[in-house]
Amino acid sequence: MSDKENAMTVTRRGLLGATAGGALAATTTASWLASSRAARAEATAKFNAEPGELDEYYGFWSSGQTGELRILGFPSMRELMRVPVFNRDSATGWGITNESLKILTEGLLPESKEFLAKRGKVTYDNGDLHHPHMSFTDGTYDGRYLFCNDKANTRVARIRCDVMKVDKIIQIPNAQDIHGLRPQKYPRTGYVFANGEHETPLVNDGTVLDDPSQYVNIFTAIDGDTMEVAWQVIVSGNLDNCDADYQGKYAFASSYNSEMGVNLEEMTANEMDHVVVFNIKEIEKGIANGDYQVLNGVKVIDGRKGKNKNYTRYIPIPNSPHGVNTAPDKRHVMIAGKLSPTVSVIDVQKVDKLFESDIDPRSAVVAEPELGLGPLHTAFDGKGHAYTTLFLDSQVVKWDIDKAIRAYAGEDVDPILDKVDVQYQPGHNHSSMGETLEADGKWVISLNKFSKDRFINVGPLKPENEQLIDLSGDRMKVVHDGPTFAEPHDAIIVRRDIVNPVNVWSRDDPMFADARAQAAADGVDLESDDVVIRDGNKVRVYMTSQAPVFGLEKFTVKQGDEVTVYVTNLDDIDDVTHGFTISNHNIAMEIGPQATASVTFTADIPGVDWYYCQWFCHALHMEMRGRMLVEPA
Amino acid sequence: MSDKENAMTVTRRGLLGATAGGALAATTTASWLASSRAARAEATAKFNAEPGELDEYYGFWSSGQTGELRILGFPSMRELMRVPVFNRDSATGWGITNESLKILTEGLLPESKEFLAKRGKVTYDNGDLHHPHMSFTDGTYDGRYLFCNDKANTRVARIRCDVMKVDKIIQIPNAQDIHGLRPQKYPRTGYVFANGEHETPLVNDGTVLDDPSQYVNIFTAIDGDTMEVAWQVIVSGNLDNCDADYQGKYAFASSYNSEMGVNLEEMTANEMDHVVVFNIKEIEKGIANGDYQVLNGVKVIDGRKGKNKNYTRYIPIPNSPHGVNTAPDKRHVMIAGKLSPTVSVIDVQKVDKLFESDIDPRSAVVAEPELGLGPLHTAFDGKGHAYTTLFLDSQVVKWDIDKAIRAYAGEDVDPILDKVDVQYQPGHNHSSMGETLEADGKWVISLNKFSKDRFINVGPLKPENEQLIDLSGDRMKVVHDGPTFAEPHDAIIVRRDIVNPVNVWSRDDPMFADARAQAAADGVDLESDDVVIRDGNKVRVYMTSQAPVFGLEKFTVKQGDEVTVYVTNLDDIDDVTHGFTISNHNIAMEIGPQATASVTFTADIPGVDWYYCQWFCHALHMEMRGRMLVEPA
Repeated sequence: MSDKENAMTVTRRGLLGATAGGALAATTTASWLASSRAARAEATAKFNAEPGELDEYYGFWSSGQTGELRILGFPSMRELMRVPVFNRDSATGWGITNESLKILTEGLLPESKEFLAKRGKVTYDNGDLHHPHMSFTDGTYDGRYLFCNDKANTRVARIRCDVMKVDKIIQIPNAQDIHGLRPQKYPRTGYVFANGEHETPLVNDGTVLDDPSQYVNIFTAIDGDTMEVAWQVIVSGNLDNCDADYQGKYAFASSYNSEMGVNLEEMTANEMDHVVVFNIKEIEKGIANGDYQVLNGVKVIDGRKGKNKNYTRYIPIPNSPHGVNTAPDKRHVMIAGKLSPTVSVIDVQKVDKLFESDIDPRSAVVAEPELGLGPLHTAFDGKGHAYTTLFLDSQVVKWDIDKAIRAYAGEDVDPILDKVDVQYQPGHNHSSMGETLEADGKWVISLNKFSKDRFINVGPLKPENEQLIDLSGDRMKVVHDGPTFAEPHDAIIVRRDIVNPVNVWSRDDPMFADARAQAAADGVDLESDDVVIRDGNKVRVYMTSQAPVFGLEKFTVKQGDEVTVYVTNLDDIDDVTHGFTISNHNIAMEIGPQATASVTFTADIPGVDWYYCQWFCHALHMEMRGRMLVEPA
Repeated sequence: MSDKENAMTVTRRGLLGATAGGALAATTTASWLASSRAARAEATAKFNAEPGELDEYYGFWSSGQTGELRILGFPSMRELMRVPVFNRDSATGWGITNESLKILTEGLLPESKEFLAKRGKVTYDNGDLHHPHMSFTDGTYDGRYLFCNDKANTRVARIRCDVMKVDKIIQIPNAQDIHGLRPQKYPRTGYVFANGEHETPLVNDGTVLDDPSQYVNIFTAIDGDTMEVAWQVIVSGNLDNCDADYQGKYAFASSYNSEMGVNLEEMTANEMDHVVVFNIKEIEKGIANGDYQVLNGVKVIDGRKGKNKNYTRYIPIPNSPHGVNTAPDKRHVMIAGKLSPTVSVIDVQKVDKLFESDIDPRSAVVAEPELGLGPLHTAFDGKGHAYTTLFLDSQVVKWDIDKAIRAYAGEDVDPILDKVDVQYQPGHNHSSMGETLEADGKWVISLNKFSKDRFINVGPLKPENEQLIDLSGDRMKVVHDGPTFAEPHDAIIVRRDIVNPVNVWSRDDPMFADARAQAAADGVDLESDDVVIRDGNKVRVYMTSQAPVFGLEKFTVKQGDEVTVYVTNLDDIDDVTHGFTISNHNIAMEIGPQATASVTFTADIPGVDWYYCQWFCHALHMEMRGRMLVEPA
């Protein structure tokens, strides 16, 4: 049996046996219950926020296939906000309002627009948001933006941290299924790096079908300021996760399918796969020198193996590697082995040499500690320690980076410092400020795929489990189980002083620039006028809202009119968000304090239809309603 | 200034002044911080679940305009599951799969189907889910179903508690905007009562438009077993909240707009509005005797004032009343005054007389305690106490039902026992098992509309705040702030022994009966076959899934084919849910252990498109993918 087969057998055992968890959970629970009440209370007091106490950190959380971004208070692990991104959201009208539809549609590729139009749609209903990461300046978070990927429909989105709303979504051409995503850390973001995971023909128009030898994968650099694709690189093998260095020189992307196989057996055939190193300056030079082809409007460089250029290097890594994490020591990049029990440590200082000469790419590997079964992702405490999730072992292992390097050099030293059981099957983990130079080593969260018996049963679909690990003692300690709806895929934990959102919208916010422009063209003052403008069979209804009334108690249109309703919320008090819903009309939207929001529809059904405020705003909230009167054609 | 104007002025002050909250919050926080660490730890230990500890209760939570149902572990207040209902859900494919689309479409009214079809839609994207309540048998929860309303698109849904998925959604004819919803408590559910809130012409086809004198509101009784409308009643005034008695004789619905006004001034003109009492047996008799008209296929009885029949009685209640809550003493029904500082207490034993003779309907009111500003809803502890939210005062008041009755009778006794500040503006509240005969008096939650300064700032849109109140001491004590995305509208708290979901789907579950029938017609064994059936330009792709592989590593179709993919999850281990997503195809679905799910689409784009498992299932989850090859037409 090969190592690979062994690993796969172990995988099976992992799921069926040790990690099915009954016994393990019982032990863990029992030990908790046995510990003194005082110790328990102390552990709890560290993360639990008393009523009215504020959290120390923002947690920005992926939701995986739910397609939204979540904001948690951390360490209390309380969900504060859902930010709709790739999903549809009934509460805010994300995917219903004109403002959101513009963002959801304008960055789509022409073929997707056509595909959706045939279904009567203008955008996708689903998304698969894996990796939320904040913009950096000088190696730490700068509080400007969050970026995240959509694996399902090959998109990248940007979220403004001042209002916590998405302002840009683009679909990436030439690639399929964006997976790994990380912003450039230095000097600033700058680029957002995005991995195409699934190999397809370079021109995927049906000319090439079942001929995998002609499939490629694409690495994309997006300009984080303009949200346009800066350039792409064709690679050998597929791409999984990625990260950037602290020097602004390299990006690293793992490949679990260096084989370019199209089924499980083929994808897992090789003992060694690789990490691709992208040389940013060399690629920029290549672009400047015209060494690219233009595909779907994008400059694409060929960085495949054997092209003998300085765009890329391929460092062999055992075995279907997954997570890529750059340490805050500015020097080491951890590549988790997944089917290998190892994490491969690359020294960025040794990577320069790979591009200078033809030396063995493995010379950049300075450690490869054996940590346990199924290593997936690594977090850091800024004190020289690394924390790696072990999917198959259902553990987090704490290890010493320096010791791992010394061991690899031949010294008889054990880098493993501690292991803690988690429940169950951890994927990503993350430490407080851990992917920045300001890693503070206080907390790790372990994002576990299965919860099994950890919560009261809610049916065949179980919550996943986000576990909070206290790093303050010598031993790691799981202090809280946080159930979550699909999927705690990835997360970052950001000190609260870095993030400074506003409480009230600015009246000149770009989010509703189109509404301002249309109002100006109609001679309407959005902040005071409540009027109906008829323009042929187009009707524009402008109304204000101030708790507990809409500016118009009714408006009349004709059956068949195309109606646009603009609502401007005049309330400027924190928290007084209004809503606008029309009965049985598939229309609902959020209007934040001092915001304008709009929705367009055709008035098809004659009769009386009420609109109402669905965002509880006032003691007379129920009375905040009015009538749309649709005259029969 | 009238009392009503006074109340509205107070409302304004409430929002702008006292409840803006800075000072209040500071005081509350300060007193908390001043209390000893030991006391804090003790308070926390009562609700915080240590890692692996199970909650004592299920919380079934409304999400308001988000349109889903949430399941919380209680009292830890951790969200365990989101059940998509009226919303679209990217993770589970609710609104994408054939199984969900059938449920979302088959109960829609013909005019809504037509309206949606003109937009290329088959169902709504939004919903406004206010009131989740469980089916009853003999006055307590029976663990069969949950029912809930959609105010936005006039629907009622049922959720199966064995699998925690919706199985039926119906749209209610003749009414507009279903608001209050409660199941019959005795002898069983039986009926689900649903209030139409917004008055419209009885035949709302545009014949009558701006003539409110011809508007009516409709009360609906749905058969909870068949999910068909049993009968409707035309009422005077509008309908807000409702509840049922413990005798199986009456339902009660409040009306804040007895005036049938169409703007704020008109709606709040009267000092007295009313609660409508529905006499179930008399209505059933009327239906049996043919005293109804049939409108849109439903038998509609006229229960308006002055019709001199025994279907309804109208009990005057001050002043725009809102919440309706039946006490577990089986006798008293609390109607909260909203703009009146009172809660009116109706004695169901005195209601019989209202139907027997022409006595003053107010004779059924046995208490009307003045509790504070903005009373909205009342919860119970089963020990003779009631807990009422005061929206304007931002408080919960605990009061003694018996003392309130004695005070009303003239005795000099104060029914108010305690008040506690909540942060801020509470709407519904609920106590553990509080709407059943098994009310246990342990906990109350206060569902507050505004959080303002209680959490770190997440932008103009703030979380709302679910506060947990410990009832174990003499004084109520807020022990936890739970931020929440829109909207903690209503909730119930159910002892965990009552709810017994399965872990794995049964292969004969009705959810995928259509898939079984189609497979049988195609001669396909869903549990073992991986085959492609072509039927003209219709292609049915049957495949199994078992971590980490799909039964088909690829399938080929022609551009323009209508493709249905059926995936049957052969894994039968708790928690091993699979997913099926096709890149850039707007397709994503959940397939629970032992479930079958399906999706239908037209293969429009020639080329290679990967499908993958988006529900993390295995160490080789990333490799769980295959190709759809679409040949050019």
